[in-house]
Amino acid sequence: MDVAETSERHLSALRGIAGQRYVLSEGPDLAPYTRDWSGDYQSAPLCVIFPGDTEQVAALAAYCWQNGLAIVPQGGNTGLVGGCHTDDRLGAVIVNLKRMNSIRRLDAENYTVEVEAGCIVQEVQDAAAARGRLFPLSFGAQGSAQVGGAVATNAGGLNVLRYGMVRDLLLGLQVVLPDGQILDCRSRLRKDNRGLDLKQLFVGSEGALGIVTAASFKLFPYPAHRETALLALGSVDGVVALYNLARTHCADLMSAFELIPRRCLELAFDHQSALRDPLDAPYEVYVLIELAASGPLDLAGLIVSLLEEAMERGLVLDGTIAASQAQSQAIWAIRESMVEAQAARGRHLRTDISVPVSALPAFIHQAEQALARVAPNWQSIAYGHIGDGNVHFNALPPAGLSDAEAGKAIPDMLRAIYTVLDQFEGSISAEHGIGRSRLGAFLARQDGVSAGLGQSVKSLIDPRGMMNPGCLFVADKEG
Amino acid sequence: MDVAETSERHLSALRGIAGQRYVLSEGPDLAPYTRDWSGDYQSAPLCVIFPGDTEQVAALAAYCWQNGLAIVPQGGNTGLVGGCHTDDRLGAVIVNLKRMNSIRRLDAENYTVEVEAGCIVQEVQDAAAARGRLFPLSFGAQGSAQVGGAVATNAGGLNVLRYGMVRDLLLGLQVVLPDGQILDCRSRLRKDNRGLDLKQLFVGSEGALGIVTAASFKLFPYPAHRETALLALGSVDGVVALYNLARTHCADLMSAFELIPRRCLELAFDHQSALRDPLDAPYEVYVLIELAASGPLDLAGLIVSLLEEAMERGLVLDGTIAASQAQSQAIWAIRESMVEAQAARGRHLRTDISVPVSALPAFIHQAEQALARVAPNWQSIAYGHIGDGNVHFNALPPAGLSDAEAGKAIPDMLRAIYTVLDQFEGSISAEHGIGRSRLGAFLARQDGVSAGLGQSVKSLIDPRGMMNPGCLFVADKEG
Repeated sequence: MDVAETSERHLSALRGIAGQRYVLSEGPDLAPYTRDWSGDYQSAPLCVIFPGDTEQVAALAAYCWQNGLAIVPQGGNTGLVGGCHTDDRLGAVIVNLKRMNSIRRLDAENYTVEVEAGCIVQEVQDAAAARGRLFPLSFGAQGSAQVGGAVATNAGGLNVLRYGMVRDLLLGLQVVLPDGQILDCRSRLRKDNRGLDLKQLFVGSEGALGIVTAASFKLFPYPAHRETALLALGSVDGVVALYNLARTHCADLMSAFELIPRRCLELAFDHQSALRDPLDAPYEVYVLIELAASGPLDLAGLIVSLLEEAMERGLVLDGTIAASQAQSQAIWAIRESMVEAQAARGRHLRTDISVPVSALPAFIHQAEQALARVAPNWQSIAYGHIGDGNVHFNALPPAGLSDAEAGKAIPDMLRAIYTVLDQFEGSISAEHGIGRSRLGAFLARQDGVSAGLGQSVKSLIDPRGMMNPGCLFVADKEG
Repeated sequence: MDVAETSERHLSALRGIAGQRYVLSEGPDLAPYTRDWSGDYQSAPLCVIFPGDTEQVAALAAYCWQNGLAIVPQGGNTGLVGGCHTDDRLGAVIVNLKRMNSIRRLDAENYTVEVEAGCIVQEVQDAAAARGRLFPLSFGAQGSAQVGGAVATNAGGLNVLRYGMVRDLLLGLQVVLPDGQILDCRSRLRKDNRGLDLKQLFVGSEGALGIVTAASFKLFPYPAHRETALLALGSVDGVVALYNLARTHCADLMSAFELIPRRCLELAFDHQSALRDPLDAPYEVYVLIELAASGPLDLAGLIVSLLEEAMERGLVLDGTIAASQAQSQAIWAIRESMVEAQAARGRHLRTDISVPVSALPAFIHQAEQALARVAPNWQSIAYGHIGDGNVHFNALPPAGLSDAEAGKAIPDMLRAIYTVLDQFEGSISAEHGIGRSRLGAFLARQDGVSAGLGQSVKSLIDPRGMMNPGCLFVADKEG
């Protein structure tokens, strides 16, 4: 058979498993699945398949396994590191889980929810909130991201400080292995020490070990009361001491502790003319704090006493506490607008790195110096989730620089920042994972024993290298 | 060489690595390492070795690997499931980590601590408390248990409700692999998504995949304020509704929510004549609640309003809130005394099981009925950590039954309870792991895909079956 005949034979078999209308091989409907959120990656698979249940996923995997077709598992395609990409037009299929979107069981009394992998993150949040529960996973792409992708990438986001990453929320998992076997680690138990916890292997495996088809998670009491404050500091050096005071003072009821440098406020103001500076004078650095709780706790009193204590200790120069939901939203609007404002500046340097919390100020200073040496005309900005040690150390190009020129400058800048990061024993990927875009930088930093064990696990579970080849692991040349 | 010569040659080589005085092969000093906490297991190894650092552990592992000696890694020997046992007098050595007990780095500002595996759990707690931080791992054996054993068994304990199991606390790990390679996953980062999280493989691996030599953990603000209450309920059926109210009302500031049936109170009173019933009349069931927080929160007000709300809703019939530390200790003394009282009754049925929280009352009723059928003269008692779904469903023998007779009755009783448990999709091991004593019941319940993958992971990392053979996995007959 020639290539076209072979492809047609595969398509026909795959349609037989998933149904005619759930296998897309051409046309404009493919676009949302072949182009990633950032637009950086454009895939060209044999087809995109939308299975309807776990048994279909298993049958698809078994067929692909037996016929030498690679599978790229796909959720909302919002991961930003090229994790769902393939240009193997003849030898790879994208399996998108979006049809498997039922919330199987929300047990409010057990504080758990079991969902299919294709559920949208925000829909799980909404379903939990309707029952007085919090599904804490929350991030920018939550309106598109699927739960299965969140598990496969161990997603983090806004609530990690208080509730942890996906790994910390996960109670049970169902995964289709590369050869089509179904690994069933579904569970609603909050405590279970029966041997090796196999599901852990698949958290953060980025689709390279199997396809997540269902998961169950911890829920929490819905925090109906919130208090938001914006505090001003003289410099980033004081932010760790303030974080320490705030964590202890507020008994871990903080759901946000975000560092925002003045430069970011100004970016936000330039971008959104309706925004107002909440304080009377400009300050070098700000911290956005949010407290949240269920029950009759006096959060308002708590945040006032925190501000008083912080000012008394000289940790904070000024601050404002939102007196209404509108004021709270106005503070958060600054945080959101400053992210949009960066995107509006075209191609720019973005990072997703972490260091020990106590090392954050020193890291920011040294990274700024390193960046100034290699790219003196770029404007660095460092903001992020202080309590997680997670800083977005970004940089904006000088006015007038084209996207192409900016793109050329970025690798050197990244190298300079990562060199500083290595001295702080930091991570080049706090949240988004490795995917394809960070694979080189990741492999260059991995020690031999870890690399060997990681590769052995990949070879054990996916000996033919059929599951998301080239993502997280170097693709087998034979594969 | 004959057997005695071979043994002598091995001992000599091992002494060369760890030092003459750190290899014990005979004498009364061996006893604490060859007899487990419960006294159920008596080991007979070639020797017990006390290495002084990770490099020595690696050298010992490499020697044993090359010379066909099995290794049984050992912490405080308090696990209660035979995880540190061997009777292979010629072919196995116990490696006890107790000399490796330094707290390498307690970074209060980063809320992290890095310790060697041999640190005693309580000593890490104390070191953290001295710096205003909480190391939440806490359980009965904490004065003897070592951190490495806690990681290897994914220990739980009293604070799981609020802070999670060891897996939830762990940030970094160093492990010596069976062949003597050192896997270095040490980290102080709170967020790190660089590929597969290999350390997860070793959490709960019960020494069957390697020897934990160092670990780092999250710390929390030390909760200086505590409030304790004992609430009385009409029956166990109301306990889930009370738990739901309490969790939401108290915004997850609960550090304990313990179910105590009346029978346990009476056991405690019989055992400790100084104990007094804190309430005026007897009730069917009690819940011990503890709230804990750092910072200026009104916990006293919170627990009063919880009690009022619970009484108004008819969830609670009576209750007392400790007005002093002495009163709080008196309530906790009942909880502790009831455990001692069971031990004083000689050989009895103990379990360590979990079910979904919402299924607890139904499970307890059905398990009581099942037990009454197979052992009508035994007295069942069910107490435990409600929020974790973790119930100690125990039973005490009729007066006058000998330990030997009691021991003979236990397997049937266990089978009856586990049969009920299976219907609730519960776990036969919520906390202690599988070890050797639960291996049969574990294997009988494992599905084929999970068993296959688990065994493959064991074979991948320990292909010669040299690491803790017979624990968690069936020992290779050839090994």
